[in-house]
Amino acid sequence: MRTALVVGTGLIGTSVALALSARGVRVHLEDHDPDQPKTAAALGAGTDEPPAGAVDLAVVAVPPAHIARTLAALQRRGAARGYVDVGSVKGGPRRELADLGGDLDSYLGTHPMSGKERSGPLAATADLFEGRPWVLTPTPGTDTEVLNLALELVALCRAVPVVMDADAHDRAVALVSHTPQLVSSLVAARLEDAAESAVRLSGQGLRDVTRVAASDPRMWLDILSTNPGPVADVLAALAGDLDEAVRSLRALESADEAKRDVGFAGVEDLLRRGRAGQDRVPGKHGAAPAAYETVAVHISDRPGELARIFADAGSAGVNVEDVRIEHATGQQAGLVQLMVEPTAAPGLIAALRQRGWPIRQ
Amino acid sequence: MRTALVVGTGLIGTSVALALSARGVRVHLEDHDPDQPKTAAALGAGTDEPPAGAVDLAVVAVPPAHIARTLAALQRRGAARGYVDVGSVKGGPRRELADLGGDLDSYLGTHPMSGKERSGPLAATADLFEGRPWVLTPTPGTDTEVLNLALELVALCRAVPVVMDADAHDRAVALVSHTPQLVSSLVAARLEDAAESAVRLSGQGLRDVTRVAASDPRMWLDILSTNPGPVADVLAALAGDLDEAVRSLRALESADEAKRDVGFAGVEDLLRRGRAGQDRVPGKHGAAPAAYETVAVHISDRPGELARIFADAGSAGVNVEDVRIEHATGQQAGLVQLMVEPTAAPGLIAALRQRGWPIRQ
Repeated sequence: MRTALVVGTGLIGTSVALALSARGVRVHLEDHDPDQPKTAAALGAGTDEPPAGAVDLAVVAVPPAHIARTLAALQRRGAARGYVDVGSVKGGPRRELADLGGDLDSYLGTHPMSGKERSGPLAATADLFEGRPWVLTPTPGTDTEVLNLALELVALCRAVPVVMDADAHDRAVALVSHTPQLVSSLVAARLEDAAESAVRLSGQGLRDVTRVAASDPRMWLDILSTNPGPVADVLAALAGDLDEAVRSLRALESADEAKRDVGFAGVEDLLRRGRAGQDRVPGKHGAAPAAYETVAVHISDRPGELARIFADAGSAGVNVEDVRIEHATGQQAGLVQLMVEPTAAPGLIAALRQRGWPIRQ
Repeated sequence: MRTALVVGTGLIGTSVALALSARGVRVHLEDHDPDQPKTAAALGAGTDEPPAGAVDLAVVAVPPAHIARTLAALQRRGAARGYVDVGSVKGGPRRELADLGGDLDSYLGTHPMSGKERSGPLAATADLFEGRPWVLTPTPGTDTEVLNLALELVALCRAVPVVMDADAHDRAVALVSHTPQLVSSLVAARLEDAAESAVRLSGQGLRDVTRVAASDPRMWLDILSTNPGPVADVLAALAGDLDEAVRSLRALESADEAKRDVGFAGVEDLLRRGRAGQDRVPGKHGAAPAAYETVAVHISDRPGELARIFADAGSAGVNVEDVRIEHATGQQAGLVQLMVEPTAAPGLIAALRQRGWPIRQ
């Protein structure tokens, strides 16, 4: 790939353009807002001049609702040899492009699975996709040349290609991304009118469950409104389990012991299934979840304390796989949980003890 | 307080006993399993010999279902001047004690809000409650002497006393602890039979929402079955919002634009309310959630990398408030997000850049 056209120079489009430019591809930038390509070009993402002729690959990075129309317009003007989009939903844009009379064979729907806490070209980086899954949704009709151009795009962005059916992709992200997002909002919404004394008792569990509810509502509205069916299907199944949980809890309030036994079994089944499902969530490196050992150390909240503990872990030759810091209410002290390979834990505990760290076992 | 009797020498009871013993209180240990007090005594939590006469305070640390009977038995034998329990539910045990003809005035229900990832006396530590909220649920009838003994217990354990009505406490923990736990299980349960290709696309959002679903089901069954009413109430309200979310998403699938507008507004309202509720979740030190700035740095996965980065942050005089490590799929590299006070961020970025760290902005 020698030339590319990136249409839509927000976070994702500009990051793609930065990665391609860094690897020697000549990138042309286009956006409905003419200031954005100028900003992206100033960051080194390419040029805001239109290409002289057809480029090798056009990358459509506009909001999901505009993808099909943008693709159809580009195809009409013969802008490129191949066309991809990078939207977070894949079935709808493909069907819309067909309705608009677009060419489905030179188009390939793709979805880079990257974190997107921020938006706009200024948040873009060439390494946004490094090591992340990048879903490709080819069909039997997809031109091999287009598929290879897309694979080259993924490789140049240092991402990991994953091939899936478009509708299977939409069901998958409904399950692992869109549903957790909405459920986090549902739990957090219960807190809106809660008593301050109740909210004050919150712990790490609530913080974890509600974290993503802080995300930008406009971005999520856009994503959810282009994938409503698969998300509604997962939520409806979850609602069935939820109703069953309420029935089980009500049965536990009963004076009738047989009813209570049924309620107990219902709650037990839900907790057991939740644990089995949680076991399947991949951990680091996209591998099966590793069973790390947790070493918990008390630290004061002074600058340098974390540095000292990591330096001491490093001196002991131990690689800390993950960290969780739990601060205490009304105090400047905290508990640091260091997650390490089980075989490394005894050595780490001994080394930290020797250096005077108070370990909680 | 000079003498105490701790009944139930699991994690919580033994931790209380260790804290009281460390501060010079003579602690007697009792359990239905005669080996447990021996283990706790060997750890320095007190003595497994029975007290010669009435102690100052009896602390009942048995599972919720056994609290009332244990209290009633202790009161019948005149074991102490005052009686507290440390169970995670408060309304039921009080009512059961009344039904058993127990003395409600010399009893005070309490609940230390401490993390309990592990169980048993061997996991106990004297500092388990340091800086954590410890709920006390006195009534107008509670003896002042008993309330003061309980406040002394909380102070000796270095916890922060919070006074609440017993039923308000149960509704509060249903909202901020028991409901998030069950909802986490509900989301995780959806993954039990999901396609491997779907689970593979999981990101940090799903990991956060489902983390507590990995907890011990038996412990949660015990907690939930003693607080079924308040949890069912919160879940039922959440189910109402969930049904509304499904209706809104189905409306978004409609060909009728007016219906789609209604669906869009419904999803928007839910996301907005979720964000407002999430804003109320307290952050570190139990204070209002601080708006930290995130500085994201790429690191390799070698031992010593985290140490180096924390050492460099420490040299710059910056206190890292929280850390999140995000590992990349199929790669040994990762992204470390350092949360710092907004005023400290520019200095940290400059200092890390100077030392050659690749910062993602």
